Amino acid sequence: MVSNSGSLHRQTLVNTGEPLRVAVIGAGYWGPNLARNFKASPDWELSAIVDQDLARALKVAGPLGDVPVFESLTALFGAIEIDAVAIATPARTHHLVALQALEAGKHVLVEKPLAASRELGLQMVQAAADGGLILMADHTYCYTPAALKIRELIEADELGEILFIDSVRINLGLVQPDVDVFWDLAPHDLSVIDFILPGGLAPESVAAHGADPLGTGKACVGHLTFALPNNAMAHINVNWLSPTKIRQMIIGGTKRTLVWDDLVPQQRISVYDRGINFEKAGTSAAQRKAQAISYRLGDTWSPALPEKEALGLMVAEFAESIRQGRPSRTSGLAGMRVLNVLEAASRSLALGGEKSFVASNDVQLEGTR
Amino acid sequence: MVSNSGSLHRQTLVNTGEPLRVAVIGAGYWGPNLARNFKASPDWELSAIVDQDLARALKVAGPLGDVPVFESLTALFGAIEIDAVAIATPARTHHLVALQALEAGKHVLVEKPLAASRELGLQMVQAAADGGLILMADHTYCYTPAALKIRELIEADELGEILFIDSVRINLGLVQPDVDVFWDLAPHDLSVIDFILPGGLAPESVAAHGADPLGTGKACVGHLTFALPNNAMAHINVNWLSPTKIRQMIIGGTKRTLVWDDLVPQQRISVYDRGINFEKAGTSAAQRKAQAISYRLGDTWSPALPEKEALGLMVAEFAESIRQGRPSRTSGLAGMRVLNVLEAASRSLALGGEKSFVASNDVQLEGTR
Amino acid sequence: MVSNSGSLHRQTLVNTGEPLRVAVIGAGYWGPNLARNFKASPDWELSAIVDQDLARALKVAGPLGDVPVFESLTALFGAIEIDAVAIATPARTHHLVALQALEAGKHVLVEKPLAASRELGLQMVQAAADGGLILMADHTYCYTPAALKIRELIEADELGEILFIDSVRINLGLVQPDVDVFWDLAPHDLSVIDFILPGGLAPESVAAHGADPLGTGKACVGHLTFALPNNAMAHINVNWLSPTKIRQMIIGGTKRTLVWDDLVPQQRISVYDRGINFEKAGTSAAQRKAQAISYRLGDTWSPALPEKEALGLMVAEFAESIRQGRPSRTSGLAGMRVLNVLEAASRSLALGGEKSFVASNDVQLEGTR
Amino acid sequence: MVSNSGSLHRQTLVNTGEPLRVAVIGAGYWGPNLARNFKASPDWELSAIVDQDLARALKVAGPLGDVPVFESLTALFGAIEIDAVAIATPARTHHLVALQALEAGKHVLVEKPLAASRELGLQMVQAAADGGLILMADHTYCYTPAALKIRELIEADELGEILFIDSVRINLGLVQPDVDVFWDLAPHDLSVIDFILPGGLAPESVAAHGADPLGTGKACVGHLTFALPNNAMAHINVNWLSPTKIRQMIIGGTKRTLVWDDLVPQQRISVYDRGINFEKAGTSAAQRKAQAISYRLGDTWSPALPEKEALGLMVAEFAESIRQGRPSRTSGLAGMRVLNVLEAASRSLALGGEKSFVASNDVQLEGTR
Repeated sequence: MVSNSGSLHRQTLVNTGEPLRVAVIGAGYWGPNLARNFKASPDWELSAIVDQDLARALKVAGPLGDVPVFESLTALFGAIEIDAVAIATPARTHHLVALQALEAGKHVLVEKPLAASRELGLQMVQAAADGGLILMADHTYCYTPAALKIRELIEADELGEILFIDSVRINLGLVQPDVDVFWDLAPHDLSVIDFILPGGLAPESVAAHGADPLGTGKACVGHLTFALPNNAMAHINVNWLSPTKIRQMIIGGTKRTLVWDDLVPQQRISVYDRGINFEKAGTSAAQRKAQAISYRLGDTWSPALPEKEALGLMVAEFAESIRQGRPSRTSGLAGMRVLNVLEAASRSLALGGEKSFVASNDVQLEGTR
Repeated sequence: MVSNSGSLHRQTLVNTGEPLRVAVIGAGYWGPNLARNFKASPDWELSAIVDQDLARALKVAGPLGDVPVFESLTALFGAIEIDAVAIATPARTHHLVALQALEAGKHVLVEKPLAASRELGLQMVQAAADGGLILMADHTYCYTPAALKIRELIEADELGEILFIDSVRINLGLVQPDVDVFWDLAPHDLSVIDFILPGGLAPESVAAHGADPLGTGKACVGHLTFALPNNAMAHINVNWLSPTKIRQMIIGGTKRTLVWDDLVPQQRISVYDRGINFEKAGTSAAQRKAQAISYRLGDTWSPALPEKEALGLMVAEFAESIRQGRPSRTSGLAGMRVLNVLEAASRSLALGGEKSFVASNDVQLEGTR
Repeated sequence: MVSNSGSLHRQTLVNTGEPLRVAVIGAGYWGPNLARNFKASPDWELSAIVDQDLARALKVAGPLGDVPVFESLTALFGAIEIDAVAIATPARTHHLVALQALEAGKHVLVEKPLAASRELGLQMVQAAADGGLILMADHTYCYTPAALKIRELIEADELGEILFIDSVRINLGLVQPDVDVFWDLAPHDLSVIDFILPGGLAPESVAAHGADPLGTGKACVGHLTFALPNNAMAHINVNWLSPTKIRQMIIGGTKRTLVWDDLVPQQRISVYDRGINFEKAGTSAAQRKAQAISYRLGDTWSPALPEKEALGLMVAEFAESIRQGRPSRTSGLAGMRVLNVLEAASRSLALGGEKSFVASNDVQLEGTR
Repeated sequence: MVSNSGSLHRQTLVNTGEPLRVAVIGAGYWGPNLARNFKASPDWELSAIVDQDLARALKVAGPLGDVPVFESLTALFGAIEIDAVAIATPARTHHLVALQALEAGKHVLVEKPLAASRELGLQMVQAAADGGLILMADHTYCYTPAALKIRELIEADELGEILFIDSVRINLGLVQPDVDVFWDLAPHDLSVIDFILPGGLAPESVAAHGADPLGTGKACVGHLTFALPNNAMAHINVNWLSPTKIRQMIIGGTKRTLVWDDLVPQQRISVYDRGINFEKAGTSAAQRKAQAISYRLGDTWSPALPEKEALGLMVAEFAESIRQGRPSRTSGLAGMRVLNVLEAASRSLALGGEKSFVASNDVQLEGTR
């Protein structure tokens, strides 16, 4: 098979340290950002832009030095040799595009959400596993210097046990034609929570409350709550109708509490060495109620963050996971965990906020990446 | 009966324009604030401080010009003539104190929450109605210049139809011995929502999600959601464990959106003339989905607010409602509406977030104030 | 003469409504921004990039669609016909480049500061006047939506008489090799003050105080003060050593006060309807002291600003002033007014802060643009 | 002499650890604050309130537990024994009141400014020295937890060499009948600078620029600049006409820069570990210009500050300096250093901003406190 032999041929190049070759599929809103970052990366050679609308593809390809354009994957694979594709097509098409690429032996990066449904996402994960290929979710926010620092601080146990996570992402946003505000905005919060928690995102159930006060046919305001380990809780607030923009995640811990305010460029992360000192005096209810409580008012600390573009770090991770043959930090399974929650949220929303069980990534896939 | 004749006697004075006479019951945390404001008001004569702990009562009474102190309502009523009592005792005792005062013919102001349960609150409302007396809830936040201005703007239809209300009240707060974070903090948000919405606070049901990650035996983090008229939704976030203090209410409307940030003294209220222009093209789902959407980015406006203490305005309203024989702006029934929601929230919380029906103030009470 | 006939030839085209043709001179820090905006403008055709370092010119020209590059003005003028040049070379070379272009009959846009000295600047203004050509200063900040709005508000007398202007522009900034912090940063503040005040920037004298605590050989911290009409005063604070970035201009007026905070994207301009009501009771000292003073605490208002790039508006103004044969809104004489103040500031600084007279644009130039 | 023997008598008591006895002189704006803090202090017994207007004195004395009142110092000293007086009368009377108290053997605390002129202030300092008595300046801001922390950080060399100090104190403020904006507001900034700098406030000269755009007969807007050791510079901006309130001091150092924003209660002090790395390559101009410059972008740190009232700490320091027989941390000489600068500022202002020499505390006073 042409594509497979191509893959094998390229595999050799992978080990030589030469740049990997990638095609960006989809020249709409997000594709040009991916293309620009692949172009700027020493790890990658941007080999093609693919879009059904060739004029649109050309508009992206031109300023980047006349990158070749194609109007289909078939045309692409028939013409040039590449190692990987980056999919930035509408969500409902992720599945077909990814499967075709995986079957052709290409590593795959997919814009969030991984797929339009859990079912389809699982097929993608299985196909990648079967082919020994990398399937990576483009969870861009996880590669911001802020999220990387938060993950590092939690790993180093700087916050202690997590008590609550409260994430607000509200803004005047265009009502999307095909998805509600949960599917549009919450993947950002969910993927970050998955990224920073040692155990990842794996709630048993979620409750989603939403409203559609403008009669658009889909929720424009939404609240998602779910339990975290150790009786902690997470809450995500997404809203398309707010004229004030808020992008804030508060992560409360037994040792310290961290606030990520993404709209304060000079001080995105603040770590408060404040909290409630709470001596767990015993296990009975009476003992718990009797225990002494006191405040701790310590310093606040704002770590310096490197000024790096998240997308640049993300494409570097894509290359590195391919070269090292290891799952990427935001793997297909991470994409699935986000998808599992989104699907459960939709079910809960349909049931008026009733708790809805979250499917787990229980399919054991040998060598899944 | 002594107390009744006293009441009649005083009733005459009420009409003369002389100050009304009030006793503050409870010299703990809130009582001194009430006492200070009654003392400073031209509408009132602060006639007594009552507390089981006479030393505590004296400590409040002294600096206010040696106001008489009593250790019980019985002692108080037996000794001096008063028109009204202001109850600032623990919540579980509101009911007994209020009933004794109402039976003695006194008007009653009660600190929030009105009573420890809906059942007991209804008895208080009924007793006030039976006696032709004012029963007022001390919903202090409703008398802040900010809340008064918001009510005025909504009445004048400056915001249009309400689309959502999102209220955040989080802070490092002492875990309370007897109530959870909902009963401690949410009454503020609920009473304000009741105050500013033309139809008051009357959701059919609520869902409450909470967490007790410290094992205190009660929720320390909480989220309350309920529907508002016209498919709008309200969300209240209360949290005792947050080192950052946020007190913000966003009220989204079809015309404008208002943000009340209580921690920005110089600009507490901002009115954004921004939003989504959304032409309701028809009633079918297809029509709704097809309609055109556009942004409106207008000016922001911050009304000047008078610098007045809410408690001062509140005690003035108490006097005025007594003199005019009309329900106060935060009547006993308003207190009941808050209580109805809190009780339903507790039930929802116990059921893991399941929607819980909110009882209505369906008891028809003639002349209820 | 080739160039003149070229100019006449092009002059004809000017009237046809075809795009004007411009060359950007200097491919360093600022040139690429100018080039990008000329490229994107319907008013202009970007005809060439000129830089002694051709490789650098090519790097700018390539992504813009392979614009021709030249290594000197002579080469440029010998090769293609253009209407105008935009000069973004080091300040000390502005004079020579501009004179050569003006002599060749080209309209000229010059990056701030207009020239390295008042003397040289005057020659440029004279040369433009002699040739009937537009000489425009690239005072970019004047074309921000914020500055345009401020000018409009002051013109409409919304602020009343100006009482004071206080402008702070501090940041961690690279110590410049050739200019001090006044020449580096203050042109922004000065050009805006010139732009928004009906009478322009024409103080009789200025005082400059600065410090060079790091021993760099030039001031890194600076304060500039000068009188405005009607006993008002202006103060400009520039600082390269501050880790906090502040870009704030306060314009106090008898009616209202305006604050421009350029780092708050969603609310750059706030207009405070607050102030001191001050009845001028008479002219004697006693009368002045006796007059009544009271506060006015009105609303705050934040006008919506269009999201337009200043550079885009600036190149449009350049084209329009050429087509209409009128001085541009930031003319060469405006550039001179800024230069006059900077030179006086340098003299004051050298004299330890002594007031230094500001030369006026007293050279009467017929038809100066 | 009665007063002296009284002083001796009390001197004994001082050593017993009993509270010291103080009278507050002046029951206007500031006196009540002093009285309240003396009353609350375990170090002090508030023995009297003195005011020519006895009714005003009574109004202060009543709520504090019926403290005795007097209408003159003479009446006071004839009636009761005290150790100290705290003077809160108009500035022009400080001198006479203080001298009378010092001659009577009383320790003296004086509200800022120490006296109406340097001449009069020196007499007070001399009189205190002659009598072996404490003369303390009520530089309240120096006792805020923020200023105390800043002094501590500078002492511990956490900021490195000071490069610049920039202090802004602007607000809508009542135009004062007798003093200009420099004398009204700048003492706060000057006293803090004196307090935090190891060498205190001792500039050789100052330049003051001001404006009186409303024709009040005195400056309402002012800028004060002066040199600090090592070629650093200080700038103080005071303004009565600004509707936005700013109280911010930036202290730039070679190691770190500190920002004190007094209007952000939860984070008043931020220490930026950012700056310019500047290797001093040599002493010649050429060497200085050639040296390498680079940025350092480190963490930001906000130390927790205890929530203590400055006035409480100030009256404690007054007691402690009396008991220990040592100058207070804000001694009469510190008050003089502020006065020296204010007088020079007035001279500079009168001369249109010309640098004016600052008198030094060159009078050697034995045992001055």
